[in-house]
Amino acid sequence: MDLSEPCFDVAHLGHVELLTDKPEESLDFFVNVYGLTESGREGDSVYLRAFDDYEFHTLKLTASNTTGMGHVGYRTTSEAALERRVAAIEKMGLGLGWVEGDLGHGRAYRFNSPDGHVFELYWETNRYVPPETERPALKNIAQRYHGRGVTPRRLDHFNLLAVDVAAIREFMPAALGSRITEQIVLDDGTVAGCWFTVNNKSYDVAYTRDATGTRGRFHHITYALDQREHILRAADIFLENGVYIETGPHKHAIQQTFFLYTYEPGGNRIEVSAGGYLIFAPDWEPIVWTQAERAKGQAWGLQTAESFHIRGTPDVPMPAGAHG
Amino acid sequence: MDLSEPCFDVAHLGHVELLTDKPEESLDFFVNVYGLTESGREGDSVYLRAFDDYEFHTLKLTASNTTGMGHVGYRTTSEAALERRVAAIEKMGLGLGWVEGDLGHGRAYRFNSPDGHVFELYWETNRYVPPETERPALKNIAQRYHGRGVTPRRLDHFNLLAVDVAAIREFMPAALGSRITEQIVLDDGTVAGCWFTVNNKSYDVAYTRDATGTRGRFHHITYALDQREHILRAADIFLENGVYIETGPHKHAIQQTFFLYTYEPGGNRIEVSAGGYLIFAPDWEPIVWTQAERAKGQAWGLQTAESFHIRGTPDVPMPAGAHG
Amino acid sequence: MDLSEPCFDVAHLGHVELLTDKPEESLDFFVNVYGLTESGREGDSVYLRAFDDYEFHTLKLTASNTTGMGHVGYRTTSEAALERRVAAIEKMGLGLGWVEGDLGHGRAYRFNSPDGHVFELYWETNRYVPPETERPALKNIAQRYHGRGVTPRRLDHFNLLAVDVAAIREFMPAALGSRITEQIVLDDGTVAGCWFTVNNKSYDVAYTRDATGTRGRFHHITYALDQREHILRAADIFLENGVYIETGPHKHAIQQTFFLYTYEPGGNRIEVSAGGYLIFAPDWEPIVWTQAERAKGQAWGLQTAESFHIRGTPDVPMPAGAHG
Amino acid sequence: MDLSEPCFDVAHLGHVELLTDKPEESLDFFVNVYGLTESGREGDSVYLRAFDDYEFHTLKLTASNTTGMGHVGYRTTSEAALERRVAAIEKMGLGLGWVEGDLGHGRAYRFNSPDGHVFELYWETNRYVPPETERPALKNIAQRYHGRGVTPRRLDHFNLLAVDVAAIREFMPAALGSRITEQIVLDDGTVAGCWFTVNNKSYDVAYTRDATGTRGRFHHITYALDQREHILRAADIFLENGVYIETGPHKHAIQQTFFLYTYEPGGNRIEVSAGGYLIFAPDWEPIVWTQAERAKGQAWGLQTAESFHIRGTPDVPMPAGAHG
Repeated sequence: MDLSEPCFDVAHLGHVELLTDKPEESLDFFVNVYGLTESGREGDSVYLRAFDDYEFHTLKLTASNTTGMGHVGYRTTSEAALERRVAAIEKMGLGLGWVEGDLGHGRAYRFNSPDGHVFELYWETNRYVPPETERPALKNIAQRYHGRGVTPRRLDHFNLLAVDVAAIREFMPAALGSRITEQIVLDDGTVAGCWFTVNNKSYDVAYTRDATGTRGRFHHITYALDQREHILRAADIFLENGVYIETGPHKHAIQQTFFLYTYEPGGNRIEVSAGGYLIFAPDWEPIVWTQAERAKGQAWGLQTAESFHIRGTPDVPMPAGAHG
Repeated sequence: MDLSEPCFDVAHLGHVELLTDKPEESLDFFVNVYGLTESGREGDSVYLRAFDDYEFHTLKLTASNTTGMGHVGYRTTSEAALERRVAAIEKMGLGLGWVEGDLGHGRAYRFNSPDGHVFELYWETNRYVPPETERPALKNIAQRYHGRGVTPRRLDHFNLLAVDVAAIREFMPAALGSRITEQIVLDDGTVAGCWFTVNNKSYDVAYTRDATGTRGRFHHITYALDQREHILRAADIFLENGVYIETGPHKHAIQQTFFLYTYEPGGNRIEVSAGGYLIFAPDWEPIVWTQAERAKGQAWGLQTAESFHIRGTPDVPMPAGAHG
Repeated sequence: MDLSEPCFDVAHLGHVELLTDKPEESLDFFVNVYGLTESGREGDSVYLRAFDDYEFHTLKLTASNTTGMGHVGYRTTSEAALERRVAAIEKMGLGLGWVEGDLGHGRAYRFNSPDGHVFELYWETNRYVPPETERPALKNIAQRYHGRGVTPRRLDHFNLLAVDVAAIREFMPAALGSRITEQIVLDDGTVAGCWFTVNNKSYDVAYTRDATGTRGRFHHITYALDQREHILRAADIFLENGVYIETGPHKHAIQQTFFLYTYEPGGNRIEVSAGGYLIFAPDWEPIVWTQAERAKGQAWGLQTAESFHIRGTPDVPMPAGAHG
Repeated sequence: MDLSEPCFDVAHLGHVELLTDKPEESLDFFVNVYGLTESGREGDSVYLRAFDDYEFHTLKLTASNTTGMGHVGYRTTSEAALERRVAAIEKMGLGLGWVEGDLGHGRAYRFNSPDGHVFELYWETNRYVPPETERPALKNIAQRYHGRGVTPRRLDHFNLLAVDVAAIREFMPAALGSRITEQIVLDDGTVAGCWFTVNNKSYDVAYTRDATGTRGRFHHITYALDQREHILRAADIFLENGVYIETGPHKHAIQQTFFLYTYEPGGNRIEVSAGGYLIFAPDWEPIVWTQAERAKGQAWGLQTAESFHIRGTPDVPMPAGAHG
């Protein structure tokens, strides 16, 4: 891959499949408290979307005997771009092959991350067409602003845990053409976290080190709201619905997003965020945060909750002597 | 140009040069009320920037005997991309040739829009390096959040008037590789307005029809703030500083941005905005607004101020019988 | 009454009874779009409340063959205070006598304003006790923050039209012990509007001149939200529910409240507001706005909608030649 | 005192005198970062005000060799009310006698709290008259919204530490006619905190237990901003100015205010807050929080910072074995 010019084969993060062992409670949470809308269901999966997601779905919620991420999908910028990416990935030896697609999109090419997470790329998509009851007043929104629960606007990003984040830092630009926007490099050279994007958003995925040394775990998924005040309102809604808030609302030092973390009933961590920044510079230099800088906590001084460094899904016991 | 895939040669809107016949008052407004920061000055020009603009400047304020826009600059994604664009534009017969660049960037290629506005493209830029007193607490911001006046975050977009917007609708994709995101098409087929982008922002430039039939005029420039509440605060700051608010705060139906319009002392229209949406779909279908839909006013019903349809800079008398 | 010290017999505005000739549509609006909660119903009336109103109800919605206000109730600071007020009002010759009270409170003393609006005073109230499903997470809120529709927090104020506002300016301090906080006095001496309060809120009732010369009409009722951003969100909810927004969101010059006006299906004007100020000075000097000052429009320049000056409920035809 | 009716002799909290041993740095903080305005100076004191405080000053900053509170002043509702309060306090045996007043107000009667804090009551005040440069655009604001630094709107409340909060719970209603609005009662019956008000604000003073067992210490003073978003902006301003944020932004469970705590250079704790609620019920029942309820942390789960329980001014060493 020619790194002298940005690569634009991948357009954007498309959807995440989450596994839950409490499918009814999880669905009730996502629809009535978090405020997503059901697009359809098939087999063990329910397809969900935020009101301004333009595709059929951005969350595929699948009943399972475990938790964590089933797979994640990115949409390419064209059919030709999809072919180019597949060729590159096959050379990397991580390919899993084509799958048929589901209710949300056409055929997709699946592959593994070095940590064993399943990714897919697709071009053909099922664009959302709102039924009469969901038609927006303004034609430049995908669906009406229904105002139910937290009502996030769109899928924003997700976060995976990995045993070797440095390996991921090689993998993402090579496989997806992602750019590195921010990273944490500890004093001993360990890459503790890395943030990537394929477009002008400052990140669509974050990878952080798994303190338990387990491969393939999921950290969180995040939908975006428009205003910081909407995150405060979300906190009130979670409070009244008995939903535990792990940390926040507060402002991240990294990425500057205003955040709040909670868990859906299946145990998967869910974030809502607002704000942050866009990256327009084609020659953006990745921000590197040192160990000392991270020790300062979040932007306004909040120390990161201990559970944030340890918990992921599926849940695993913390090894003796390990620490976040 | 191959329209089957998006064109990515141009990275983003870089800067606008505004002409003012009241240079001292204009500078005082931009620095102390609007909240930009001076980066430098040379000749008749002062270079200004918002606190999170990564380049040296995004506004070049030039003393003149007239008002309106001097030129607008876009940055390309690479040197090669710049060459590709120049080749394409020279074929279109609108080229003006290379200029040396100024304090803010390297050599630039200038050309005319069909309406006579001067555009330039450049690759080499002068990245902003904050002096000690402007160093941000968070290293992912370009400059400290100084909190002076309205304190916009970054240059967002600009708006030009044109006699023939349909011609511009052909020009922008051909010259810059811009995508059309929204447009107004009247019952008689006239294109009354058209919004363009070169990246994931839903627009970086809007072109609207000049009701006076004059070529080459400027409508407004807009900086972005992070929150809708910051626009309300801006309104309070303008109010206390005796700055006339032409219309807003309100929410645009087109582009959904939360806006407020005012004038700088030279008479150029200045907007602050927050919100709106991002476009990730590589196959976005332009939104077309009809005459009847526009008659409904802005998102929440505010009718557009009459002056908004007529006034531009430089100022010209409205022809008898003309209407917005 | 001794005007040398503030009078504290009346504690606060308690409730407003609105008449509607579209009771089902009105109820659906207030519960599902505006976001009030039903406390109970009896006869032709449904009792409604905002989530942090401490009394049983603050809105009594009564099916009728007309529209406008049935009556308004204020709660006194004690039983003795109620007796003092009744004695004072009876001397004024405006008394109507005691009524039994309803689901919301104990016996009440009714009387007429000079313009023919029915007021009542009461002391014994029916404090709201939330059912299990409405129990708040924080014990200092009256009811859970349900997040349904606009979700106003509490009743804020109401506005009546009167033929002779100057007469009301005499009446309110004498009858309720209200203080005058702001007023509009036209160049010819006419009192065009007057704002009153019985406590630290800067107003609980506004009286404005009825441009049609009709007695006893209702202008609007207002519930408060906590944040200006919540008013913007309310605008989005009204937009998506097809509810006409008469004017706003904007900031009032008078009282500084951030407002938005709409109509419930029966035609009564409904406001939501946030912000404004509190008055702690016991010797507050009423603010007097001149005709020239009012001509400037609202705080940020929005001109008041023509309908705002004319429409009230019940609806009456505007006399020929009349103007707001 | 007759408790059957609320007592209204005291109108509102008027001002707090803070002592600082770094007077220049403290003044620079309050004016340029916090955003108060200097009204005048005399002797070792500088008088400061928020932009919508109606009196001459609300903060008297006095150079000293120690820190903490010099005294606190409340304004009465009339001269007669002042006399009534003085008579009541003299009977309580806590009176210190009359003082001349200062730049901000007329003669004042001083007395001690049971914990040794100095209070004063006054009626005659020096109403703020803005100089030309500070004249507001809207005549119902005391001073223009200058937008410098955090720009709080008005003094809101203060917090004192006491060895015996139960004694204060007797004292405040008896001395000032304050009402108890919320309190913390531990399992062993200890009153750990108590909130009081003399008007419709839900508190103007909080008293919390001094974990060090020291008498007469000061915990914090708080100015109010209008919006929760303004507190978030304040956090950004503190961040950029190198001002340590002790805790927040977050929402208090008690009083529901959205808060942020910091320290001025002299070491006195300073809060900014927004929101909360008003109490209109004349028969409000104090909210009692149990030990178990307080263990849940703040509204959205943030645990109170350890320093919050221990630090006060003047600073004293924490006794061995003591805990918050």
